[in-house]
Amino acid sequence: MWCRCIAAAAALAMLPVALLASPSALAEDGYDVWLRYRPLDQAHSAAAAVPALAAPASTPAQGAARDELLRGLGGLLGTRPALIEKVDRDGALVLGTPASSPLVAGLELDLAGLGEEGYLIRSVRIGGHAATVIAANQDIGVLYGAFHFLRLAQTGQSLSSLDLRESPKVKIRVLNHWDNLDRHVERGYAGESIWDWHRLPDWLDPRYTDYARANASIGINGTVLNNVNTSAQALTPMYLDKTRALAGVFRPYGIKVYLSARFSAPIEIGGLKTADPLDPAVRRWWKAKADEIYALIPDFGGFLVKANSEGQPGPQDYGRSHADGANMLAEAVAPHGGIVMWRAFVYSHEEPDDRAKQAYTEFVPYDGTFADNVLVQVKNGAIDFQPREPFHPLFGAMPKTPLMMEFQITKEYLGFATHLAYLAPMYEEALRADTHARGPGSTVAKVVDGTLEGHALTGMAGVANIGVDRNWSGSHFDQANWYAYGRLAWDPDAGSREIAQDWVRMTFSTDPAFVAPVVDMMMGSREAVVDYMTPLGLHHLMGRGHHYGPGPWVAGGPRADWTSVYYHRADRNGIGFDRSAGGSDAVAQYAAPVARQFGDLATVPEEFLLWFHHVPWDHRMASGRTLWDELVLRYGRGVDYVKSMRRTWDGLAGQVDAERHRQVAVFLAIQEKEAQWWRDASIAYFQTFSKRPLPKGEAPPPHTLEYYESLQFPFAPGDGK
Amino acid sequence: MWCRCIAAAAALAMLPVALLASPSALAEDGYDVWLRYRPLDQAHSAAAAVPALAAPASTPAQGAARDELLRGLGGLLGTRPALIEKVDRDGALVLGTPASSPLVAGLELDLAGLGEEGYLIRSVRIGGHAATVIAANQDIGVLYGAFHFLRLAQTGQSLSSLDLRESPKVKIRVLNHWDNLDRHVERGYAGESIWDWHRLPDWLDPRYTDYARANASIGINGTVLNNVNTSAQALTPMYLDKTRALAGVFRPYGIKVYLSARFSAPIEIGGLKTADPLDPAVRRWWKAKADEIYALIPDFGGFLVKANSEGQPGPQDYGRSHADGANMLAEAVAPHGGIVMWRAFVYSHEEPDDRAKQAYTEFVPYDGTFADNVLVQVKNGAIDFQPREPFHPLFGAMPKTPLMMEFQITKEYLGFATHLAYLAPMYEEALRADTHARGPGSTVAKVVDGTLEGHALTGMAGVANIGVDRNWSGSHFDQANWYAYGRLAWDPDAGSREIAQDWVRMTFSTDPAFVAPVVDMMMGSREAVVDYMTPLGLHHLMGRGHHYGPGPWVAGGPRADWTSVYYHRADRNGIGFDRSAGGSDAVAQYAAPVARQFGDLATVPEEFLLWFHHVPWDHRMASGRTLWDELVLRYGRGVDYVKSMRRTWDGLAGQVDAERHRQVAVFLAIQEKEAQWWRDASIAYFQTFSKRPLPKGEAPPPHTLEYYESLQFPFAPGDGK
Repeated sequence: MWCRCIAAAAALAMLPVALLASPSALAEDGYDVWLRYRPLDQAHSAAAAVPALAAPASTPAQGAARDELLRGLGGLLGTRPALIEKVDRDGALVLGTPASSPLVAGLELDLAGLGEEGYLIRSVRIGGHAATVIAANQDIGVLYGAFHFLRLAQTGQSLSSLDLRESPKVKIRVLNHWDNLDRHVERGYAGESIWDWHRLPDWLDPRYTDYARANASIGINGTVLNNVNTSAQALTPMYLDKTRALAGVFRPYGIKVYLSARFSAPIEIGGLKTADPLDPAVRRWWKAKADEIYALIPDFGGFLVKANSEGQPGPQDYGRSHADGANMLAEAVAPHGGIVMWRAFVYSHEEPDDRAKQAYTEFVPYDGTFADNVLVQVKNGAIDFQPREPFHPLFGAMPKTPLMMEFQITKEYLGFATHLAYLAPMYEEALRADTHARGPGSTVAKVVDGTLEGHALTGMAGVANIGVDRNWSGSHFDQANWYAYGRLAWDPDAGSREIAQDWVRMTFSTDPAFVAPVVDMMMGSREAVVDYMTPLGLHHLMGRGHHYGPGPWVAGGPRADWTSVYYHRADRNGIGFDRSAGGSDAVAQYAAPVARQFGDLATVPEEFLLWFHHVPWDHRMASGRTLWDELVLRYGRGVDYVKSMRRTWDGLAGQVDAERHRQVAVFLAIQEKEAQWWRDASIAYFQTFSKRPLPKGEAPPPHTLEYYESLQFPFAPGDGK
Repeated sequence: MWCRCIAAAAALAMLPVALLASPSALAEDGYDVWLRYRPLDQAHSAAAAVPALAAPASTPAQGAARDELLRGLGGLLGTRPALIEKVDRDGALVLGTPASSPLVAGLELDLAGLGEEGYLIRSVRIGGHAATVIAANQDIGVLYGAFHFLRLAQTGQSLSSLDLRESPKVKIRVLNHWDNLDRHVERGYAGESIWDWHRLPDWLDPRYTDYARANASIGINGTVLNNVNTSAQALTPMYLDKTRALAGVFRPYGIKVYLSARFSAPIEIGGLKTADPLDPAVRRWWKAKADEIYALIPDFGGFLVKANSEGQPGPQDYGRSHADGANMLAEAVAPHGGIVMWRAFVYSHEEPDDRAKQAYTEFVPYDGTFADNVLVQVKNGAIDFQPREPFHPLFGAMPKTPLMMEFQITKEYLGFATHLAYLAPMYEEALRADTHARGPGSTVAKVVDGTLEGHALTGMAGVANIGVDRNWSGSHFDQANWYAYGRLAWDPDAGSREIAQDWVRMTFSTDPAFVAPVVDMMMGSREAVVDYMTPLGLHHLMGRGHHYGPGPWVAGGPRADWTSVYYHRADRNGIGFDRSAGGSDAVAQYAAPVARQFGDLATVPEEFLLWFHHVPWDHRMASGRTLWDELVLRYGRGVDYVKSMRRTWDGLAGQVDAERHRQVAVFLAIQEKEAQWWRDASIAYFQTFSKRPLPKGEAPPPHTLEYYESLQFPFAPGDGK
């Protein structure tokens, strides 16, 4: 991390000045992520001066907060604060809980309502001196407050007259690692898993600590270590001991570990003949397994389960329901305070008439039957993390069940790590969608944060984009998606633009001449991906298996709903999946006002047009153009946006270190090439149905459709294994 | 690399001194490998002062030498030399070829005999000033000389009165990467492949340049990018373009790229029905493929081939010989100056009476029939990179054919990356072995360097231990094996102790109080692995498939020679593989004096005892102990050595940075645990045959044999895929 180079500077302080004339660029490899405590400029530095710090460190969690402030303020301000016990000068920073700090106790602050994780930051006077206090009910709240204070300093905000109260709106804020035990990361584009299982529990890579710091800084309080498509081996004593070691690293940072549980584990590692959730021996096995885990890890979070989906085992194998399966596991972890996150991403072996309908069909009947410590984890949309999907119809449809949001941070369908696509606007779009479940204003965010139906147990999951790549996420800009996910999990009502502003300032520069164009570029980047991959509500058109590049021609294979033609349904008449009442009637799964809006060609938003309707090629769009012309133009608009991002970025060359600038520039060049490929291949393909000319001025694809179809990428990263 | 923190120091030079009091340790994550240009102490620094540098930089190769000296001397001496055109002061360093540097040309040095890659370093006077010249016939020689000069400075040697002449004794000095195109590294214990194929050719990771620098610094001049078990995809235009991009990065550093060629590629990617090497269409296909490659990469090195071995396709599939196969490929690359490296590591589908005999049996008859640009690549021993093997009987047995040595740098059979085992003594042992092919003194080194039979085309291959781990090799000490391999490829007569001394000084410290114990520790470390895994000539006793941990009980499965029992043959009477005249008679493949020595129980060296003989449990050893007692004691001796390494290392805590010290300490603890496991499991197993008590004072294994046999490691790293 940054402090290392601080230390290097210390070691070299005695060297001749000539040495310091090294022409090499200041190294910026992205490892620091947004915890980049580089010196502030003089004006900010003076304004942010913190000469002294009164911070307890009698527990590891307290030590984490104190050390982070020493590291952060030392880096940002050029001077490490003096550690004090008494406030004897102006400008001290005082932190703690009433229990850990007599100074905090003496202030008699109103900490009620902050809960276990909340904190306040306030400008106060102590013993006649101006001071800032970070106070909370628990150590973890103090750590969160410390990170918030550092963020204020990093982003150049005033540190005087502070009066902030913060507590998270969502209780369970977890990353889901789709990491296999062999370190392959399913849908990972940042190298292999950071979990070095083979050398655990002995070798604790310092990276684990930096992972915990980064997550704690954005309020993430849990991590599911292993893929939802998991081996049962993860639950064997050998692996539980490795998990115990990781839990020990994460504990001071308020991060609980969770494990994905393979439903058939009682057979595979338990020696039983069945995994039937109503079988007493199976229930005993899971209870014993939970007891074994909690004996090793008293604060173990619980289980995440993918059951009866894409070939995974589950309760339906025994004629039981999802509720039967989830409740069995819930019963096992309940005595220890654990939870079960049961995924609603299901589809059966039989091909349904419309896969979009299946989760709703399978889960709604069980509303009210899940145990109190079960959350049902629902993807933002009903298909699978497409660049744009309408909100999942389950939100609002299971009022008696806490529904967790599952977002995908890794960009399985949005260009892998090389494409610059800031996902927070996509998350925001889903969270702000109005389910109308209890009338207007029944947003998905209110379902997720529990306020709509009064659930106390609430959660949000993000499928991690983290790997061993030096910059963690495979690209510098993908760190923003990790960051934004954490901020939105803490506060689902936060704004994606404000989050981007913070991230850019913390990660790159506080110079407004840099921040403004970069934030603008980010804010439009996801819409550009929608345009050049799947405009106007198209979806699931990518290459088979690895999901790399365009594949609108994908057909055949083991099941229809793994093809592209199933979803776009292009023919001589038009294009799109008719999910209106005249088609699959998936719209009927939404509340009536939503169903009416989506189900009517006249009122459906154009961005969902082809999601819900099969539309004639000559359908007249709001622009006055035909659908075909509009489609072609949208593809081109996406490519143009990438070109404009390149221009913007190239123009910022002097304002960011050369190392990161170069990588981003090369990746944008790759993105432009691939955006063009998506546009060209898609147009070449769909034109075989539309049989219409391209709009005037639109360049024809440079290759034949056969050429695009011939491209093969057997070693594309992140494929399922 | 180090220069980054130098740069950081520069950026921070203006910061208050208080900042510099950061308690963090100076970061040492191993990324710099031995090119660790940290400041020398004052005495050395003064002695090594280089105030000025006269170096041409009109080609990339020249620029590489100049930049390395600026970087290295700037780091080591605290002052970057001034770049000069004329020698106008004492102490200048002058480099170049007569063609690139008028100053060098003016010295009229005797460069004859240095060849294309050699160089001289000499203290001279130019225009009345004392100077040092690094001169060569070609740019690459100058770069090698620059690295040699830096090594002298790094290791604290005198830089005055220099008069060195160096040229490599071996022509082809290559790394073999067993890297798959999906980035899995077969037998890799340092993370996945550093080749980010997916983002090539666009994104050229700066790591590729650092890889080239590290290799050039030890004289490695070629790299085979892909696994010998390769997909034919590596030869498709898409991948050739990626290879072209890598070749461009490596070219200035004198490193040629080679590719492993799948023998059946004409079928798999060429659309032919056969890969018969005598088929004209097949020959045309390979010629066209070679032409295609050389059009992209004019200095492409050639092909490495694993054929008819472990299921790989090859000429025998068509009733043709290895020579037929090799010569076909040789014909394709010959017009372009390319070579073919044809591996002798073969064994047929049929199980032979003794796998150790097979390569000799298959290859010797073809001696003299290989094309001029073919090298036959032979592993150091006849089985497979075991901790100890007698030298391969092919060495000395194919006088008309250039035989390349193939060493394994990655520790497939020596504890993966976590065990500290310095392999240079093992390499040295093989190279110094006397084949007696042309009488006494016919060492393997002389076969490899071509002097025994007068071959000009010579080569050495090392199976790389490189991956994306921050320290490249999975552990700090495994970097020494990469380093030592390079030094021995350059000079097969170099000494492993001297190499270790250089490496320790460059990598850690020049303090004799550190260097001496660490070098001692390294020098005995491989013998310790032999002791705790496979003492007294035992071999191939590891876990099945992944090769992790002990598996002397491994039996059954697809073929006998993939089991342990095939090799140790323990029974109630004794243990060992009888390869004497009364057994498989593998000894007969050696020259008569060697065959006599190895074949006679009375004269066979004890370290090869059970390799060549089945020996009764009560056989009396040189120590006076019975074989059984000796075996048990050797196992314990290996464990004890690891314990002594831990003591040594713990005692050096203050003399090395905390970061590397900690990782090495943890890895040594893992090594002790695993050495003990090897010892205990092996004794528990062999005692079921010997039925003898342990020698007095030897602790019994703490677990039952059944326990050891029950351990499963399905996700151990590096398995074949």
